[in-house]
Amino acid sequence: MSRVYNFNPGPSTLPLEVLEQIRDELLDFNHSGMSILESSHRGKEYSAVHTEAEQNLRKLLNVPDDYAILFLTGGASAQFAMVPMNLLRKGRFAEYVHTGAWAKKAIAEARIVGEVRISADTSAEKPARIPRIDELNLHDDAEYVHITSNETIDGIQWKVFPRTKAPLVADMSSDILSRPFDLKQFGLIYAGAQKNLGVAGVTVVIIRKDLAERVPDSVPKIFRYRSHIEENSLFNTPPCFAVYILMLMTRWIMKTGLDVIYKQNREKAAILYKVIDADGFYRGTAHPESRSDMNVTFRLADESLTELFIKEASEAGFKGLKGHRTVGGIRASIYNAFPVQGVKALADFMCEFRRKHG
Amino acid sequence: MSRVYNFNPGPSTLPLEVLEQIRDELLDFNHSGMSILESSHRGKEYSAVHTEAEQNLRKLLNVPDDYAILFLTGGASAQFAMVPMNLLRKGRFAEYVHTGAWAKKAIAEARIVGEVRISADTSAEKPARIPRIDELNLHDDAEYVHITSNETIDGIQWKVFPRTKAPLVADMSSDILSRPFDLKQFGLIYAGAQKNLGVAGVTVVIIRKDLAERVPDSVPKIFRYRSHIEENSLFNTPPCFAVYILMLMTRWIMKTGLDVIYKQNREKAAILYKVIDADGFYRGTAHPESRSDMNVTFRLADESLTELFIKEASEAGFKGLKGHRTVGGIRASIYNAFPVQGVKALADFMCEFRRKHG
Repeated sequence: MSRVYNFNPGPSTLPLEVLEQIRDELLDFNHSGMSILESSHRGKEYSAVHTEAEQNLRKLLNVPDDYAILFLTGGASAQFAMVPMNLLRKGRFAEYVHTGAWAKKAIAEARIVGEVRISADTSAEKPARIPRIDELNLHDDAEYVHITSNETIDGIQWKVFPRTKAPLVADMSSDILSRPFDLKQFGLIYAGAQKNLGVAGVTVVIIRKDLAERVPDSVPKIFRYRSHIEENSLFNTPPCFAVYILMLMTRWIMKTGLDVIYKQNREKAAILYKVIDADGFYRGTAHPESRSDMNVTFRLADESLTELFIKEASEAGFKGLKGHRTVGGIRASIYNAFPVQGVKALADFMCEFRRKHG
Repeated sequence: MSRVYNFNPGPSTLPLEVLEQIRDELLDFNHSGMSILESSHRGKEYSAVHTEAEQNLRKLLNVPDDYAILFLTGGASAQFAMVPMNLLRKGRFAEYVHTGAWAKKAIAEARIVGEVRISADTSAEKPARIPRIDELNLHDDAEYVHITSNETIDGIQWKVFPRTKAPLVADMSSDILSRPFDLKQFGLIYAGAQKNLGVAGVTVVIIRKDLAERVPDSVPKIFRYRSHIEENSLFNTPPCFAVYILMLMTRWIMKTGLDVIYKQNREKAAILYKVIDADGFYRGTAHPESRSDMNVTFRLADESLTELFIKEASEAGFKGLKGHRTVGGIRASIYNAFPVQGVKALADFMCEFRRKHG
């Protein structure tokens, strides 16, 4: 088997050792005589998986007891609606920081539910950037303040999170567990798993439990955080296999340690940004202070070379480098599981491509 | 590897050949150099899977072009809310047939959204049964009529579906693709995949497209069927791996043919009902005319033997036979993928248990 380098923005690459374990135990999980794919969500095999996934996340992120960890479905897109349905009461308002395409989607869904105010809007700026803390127009009586910790399309990332009086809510889909942070600064965080936590199909929500009490009676039970807190994410059948992979991914992160993962992530990104900044052949699209460690976005100064770059890269085994269809250019998504040797190989390819076409 | 007989009500057993294929191609899907778990939902590998799963369902159920087939998440529980959010307009009403625990959940969620009328209620009857068509109190001006095609807990199943003027909506989670039926009789059907279609994590919705236009603007986009129809179930990242297994399961069903699957399902159920009816040692809990081919429910006349039955069955490799915690007794769930030899082996075990303890 020849394994390619998978730079897709999500679903994305998984560690080979995790894939091998999934394969090796696929027909018979823990000597139960059945696959984890077939195991009852109320049986002891899956229960142990569910519990360990929750406990590993609790340890990795130092989640205090007054926060619940939930395994839901529907990805960040479902959370764009569930957050305001649960937390934004009638006659009040929520504040959103508009940093790009993902923040925009969160804002659009929230506006269907209630009043949204924009605390800052850098979404149209080029180079793309995250607003400075002192630019945020925040109000203590907001129901919550919503940010997008990493914008995958423009390749920008919050480096310091604001300290807010209103509960801080973050879409961390594309950088959760890529670095340590103080969870207590947040009222709620959520993340689809398909970038740093495993595969599409499970969404992690970590919520300070008291916030779940706000929900109005008009919200269906399935869309209330409270329902899922009360039933320990077994209010309905959870996406068992995606939770199982989440458990394997948290084990894999714990083995290395989150601090080391963070150091590796910064080093991986720095390798690519160094090539981008070397001369004018490539051009980064993100403001240097906001550059993402997860999604390295750049363009070729000579845009007519973009297609050729993507074609030659693909032939050389570098897949998924095409920038998002709305912005074009190049994007290298290098989440936790993306190996450093793949980043070095891409850097070499970029230097060689520049030598040939520069 | 010694494989047990898995009678769990869902997640449930999968065909061994499907599990083996998943395992064999887990590290390298279709020579792409990556796992299907890692493939982009917009890449050509997953796109082919997504398309084939949809086309296979369309063929198997003769789905006309004016119906959309959607791959959503959240299971039947999310549909309990989405159906009324999309179809039940203010000032109007929906009719529900109350047949048991699953209908009850659907009714409770719908009541949060709008006005619900009960067309018939057999939920408290013992033996459990589905109402006769002539017992249904239906109104042509209802927004829709909702039924639960198979109640897993009580083990009852609609044998003939009503022809209604208002769109007929069915939760088919526990018997979809277990038998042929006329889809055109329905406005919308939905099913979590973890019983007959694969694994937990994907929900199939088949909807007559004009019904998706009813949705009020107050519903978040992610919870509108219309959003998912417009984007061919790529409005957000789909649960790719669960869709992949759904594709393999539909292939597996097509290989045998739905008519043959149906015949096998009836034969499997008949083997167990015959043992149950042989004398008074076992006692079926469903009315003979409503008996489910999917979930065979029974009790021991001497209830004090129930625990021993479950214990000895488990030791003999028959897992998941314990009845739902709300009703007790025994339940053998024998969905499409459950092998006939497993049913025969359980029947033998039941006869032997009766011989020893009768």
